[in-house]
Amino acid sequence: MTQRLHIGKLATLLAMLDDDERSPFESIMDEVIVCEGKVGSMNMQKVISAVETAVKRTGLIEEGVYRETHALYHAILEALEGVTRGQLAIGDMMRTVGLRFAVVRGNPYQEKKEGEWIAVAFYGTIGAPVKGLEHEAIGLGINHI
Amino acid sequence: MTQRLHIGKLATLLAMLDDDERSPFESIMDEVIVCEGKVGSMNMQKVISAVETAVKRTGLIEEGVYRETHALYHAILEALEGVTRGQLAIGDMMRTVGLRFAVVRGNPYQEKKEGEWIAVAFYGTIGAPVKGLEHEAIGLGINHI
Amino acid sequence: MTQRLHIGKLATLLAMLDDDERSPFESIMDEVIVCEGKVGSMNMQKVISAVETAVKRTGLIEEGVYRETHALYHAILEALEGVTRGQLAIGDMMRTVGLRFAVVRGNPYQEKKEGEWIAVAFYGTIGAPVKGLEHEAIGLGINHI
Amino acid sequence: MTQRLHIGKLATLLAMLDDDERSPFESIMDEVIVCEGKVGSMNMQKVISAVETAVKRTGLIEEGVYRETHALYHAILEALEGVTRGQLAIGDMMRTVGLRFAVVRGNPYQEKKEGEWIAVAFYGTIGAPVKGLEHEAIGLGINHI
Amino acid sequence: MTQRLHIGKLATLLAMLDDDERSPFESIMDEVIVCEGKVGSMNMQKVISAVETAVKRTGLIEEGVYRETHALYHAILEALEGVTRGQLAIGDMMRTVGLRFAVVRGNPYQEKKEGEWIAVAFYGTIGAPVKGLEHEAIGLGINHI
Amino acid sequence: MTQRLHIGKLATLLAMLDDDERSPFESIMDEVIVCEGKVGSMNMQKVISAVETAVKRTGLIEEGVYRETHALYHAILEALEGVTRGQLAIGDMMRTVGLRFAVVRGNPYQEKKEGEWIAVAFYGTIGAPVKGLEHEAIGLGINHI
Repeated sequence: MTQRLHIGKLATLLAMLDDDERSPFESIMDEVIVCEGKVGSMNMQKVISAVETAVKRTGLIEEGVYRETHALYHAILEALEGVTRGQLAIGDMMRTVGLRFAVVRGNPYQEKKEGEWIAVAFYGTIGAPVKGLEHEAIGLGINHI
Repeated sequence: MTQRLHIGKLATLLAMLDDDERSPFESIMDEVIVCEGKVGSMNMQKVISAVETAVKRTGLIEEGVYRETHALYHAILEALEGVTRGQLAIGDMMRTVGLRFAVVRGNPYQEKKEGEWIAVAFYGTIGAPVKGLEHEAIGLGINHI
Repeated sequence: MTQRLHIGKLATLLAMLDDDERSPFESIMDEVIVCEGKVGSMNMQKVISAVETAVKRTGLIEEGVYRETHALYHAILEALEGVTRGQLAIGDMMRTVGLRFAVVRGNPYQEKKEGEWIAVAFYGTIGAPVKGLEHEAIGLGINHI
Repeated sequence: MTQRLHIGKLATLLAMLDDDERSPFESIMDEVIVCEGKVGSMNMQKVISAVETAVKRTGLIEEGVYRETHALYHAILEALEGVTRGQLAIGDMMRTVGLRFAVVRGNPYQEKKEGEWIAVAFYGTIGAPVKGLEHEAIGLGINHI
Repeated sequence: MTQRLHIGKLATLLAMLDDDERSPFESIMDEVIVCEGKVGSMNMQKVISAVETAVKRTGLIEEGVYRETHALYHAILEALEGVTRGQLAIGDMMRTVGLRFAVVRGNPYQEKKEGEWIAVAFYGTIGAPVKGLEHEAIGLGINHI
Repeated sequence: MTQRLHIGKLATLLAMLDDDERSPFESIMDEVIVCEGKVGSMNMQKVISAVETAVKRTGLIEEGVYRETHALYHAILEALEGVTRGQLAIGDMMRTVGLRFAVVRGNPYQEKKEGEWIAVAFYGTIGAPVKGLEHEAIGLGINHI
């Protein structure tokens, strides 16, 4: 398995970089399907929904197919583990998130049999529900699709 | 609290980018203290030690001071939550990691009272103990120091 | 400790098998007290309550006695770990369950001193809150009572 | 999505039932690929390896393909969550398991697009490392492959 | 690092002891800043808020400073891990708590460089939302501040 | 359910107080069976074993009876959740503990039917495997027996 395309790195850069910082990475973007968005909430459900909705609206996954929904869902949850670090909870633990997310679908491996994979990345802040009382957080989830 | 310096983003970029990709971000690097390294292992202890040793050798934290060791330790663990996504274990779960890490120490907030914070970032692969059977992983931990 | 009666297996079969599939196992059922039910929800509280209510209504545990409630509660939670696999949450993680459950109370061990034990089993589906976007799930919890 | 084949129920029955108890379910077995085995250990790695080795030896998944290894690995871990109920650890927590396992690969859904899925089930005992000081445990993990 | 003051023990004693039981420990109390309170709830948010509010009202931490809020927040969560033992949830898991808490701020170590630390302790009951169906619980979290 | 005897508080005081600090609580000790000990290790197994061995040697539980071993085991694990706060691991996470423990067996509730319960408490330090780089930790587990 040789990895020819780092969809995780790509998703993380997209979630993390502002438009003017992205130019050096634009050539790689042509090989993958990308979806981006933003969500701010104390509600974990809303964060998950925001990604799922954006992904379906852009056609990055096929909506009626459970197989694809299942792959995406687990990639989102794994990315949220990195954001929440220990407990998959936000509001229940009296904290809030403001996140930018990017989802990348592509063929990371050279072998054809490895097929398509999906990467979900979050970057933003997590903290007390008071503006400014927060620090950065990141998360990345990857799954075969 | 206005965040003037994104030490988490900086640490993640350092862990993720190759030398030739870093030039656009070099100007910000002058404001922070940075330590970088690599570790590949099935043993969580070795991963934690690799970071602690690198950090102490570069003088990024003061070695004999528990306060600083404590801040670093929790930042490392939080970063590993993102890498392991759900269970803080590697070899016990029959998986191995190959990671690049970066630790950044600086003053992220404009208010002087907020003082120094530390960011630990990992980027690399996690997977079966067979070369190539692996995918990307990322983790970021942040703490006041 | 020789196990003469597999209350866990019995509870799982009851939760999993339809009426017409159960006949081969009916002889063993005479030795135990059994309670069965169904619950579908995005709310973990409702799932726990559904089992507790069914159990108390059938007299399988003595309602006013904390000791028995305590034993049942932990058996339910352990069974839900199997259903949720990693995070004891349903709706917060944007997923829903449709479960059949069975609770069995009996003496699994030959030694009299081992006394009574309780087994709680769930079988059904877990998935997105959209009909059909779901797969099977199982859970079993066992405790001394 | 209509579920026409319950691969999870099938895997659990195979892991749980003795040969003489299986006859009522044999007709369904023809539609799926099945692999069975046993493992007793205080070492989580050995439990995971036992399943992976058995699965590869029987050709149930294609060995060199990471995609399939990845799907199997996560199904095994999810099944072990049900067995261990809360912490993915055995020996470290001073307990041991004696498990029978079954892996089923098939097409659970009627829609062709849903493709193949894999189910991993464990059934056996978990307890103190002293013969007899143990109770039953079950676990089921399901993934798209 | 020699520990000259056990702020964790002190916080636990304050949370656990009634007024008439405290006299033997009063001399040590002079060296630390203390805040005490009570909270009963099925809602984790309310428990966290109760401590944060009490702490800010007594001036034990500086309200606008994120650094201090961050240190306190993590100490509270760690203390709640001891109370909830496994899942940071109360009402979602159909249980309720009735807790007394104490927060202690002081210099536990002899070395000046170690500076101030904070200890958060809870003591009370956890159980079913029915009066009396509950048992004791304790939790202690410690952080540098 | 009226609680007439706080076995959790008692166990915690025993684990936490030195001999000369205990005198005010001695009268209550007569109503319960108590076992005390010490353990220092990076190995979770050794911590669990130390308590189990001490408890069996003092006859606080009946050694051959699984029912009692099971009750004790879960009380120990719950107490360790408070000590480790988030992950039931010590050495794997590059940390070590030095703990005093106390186990109390008694009848906490006035109702006869509630029978006997067991409380396990730990108090001591957790930290880096370097003398002094550590802070206090506490844990309490309670179970019916």
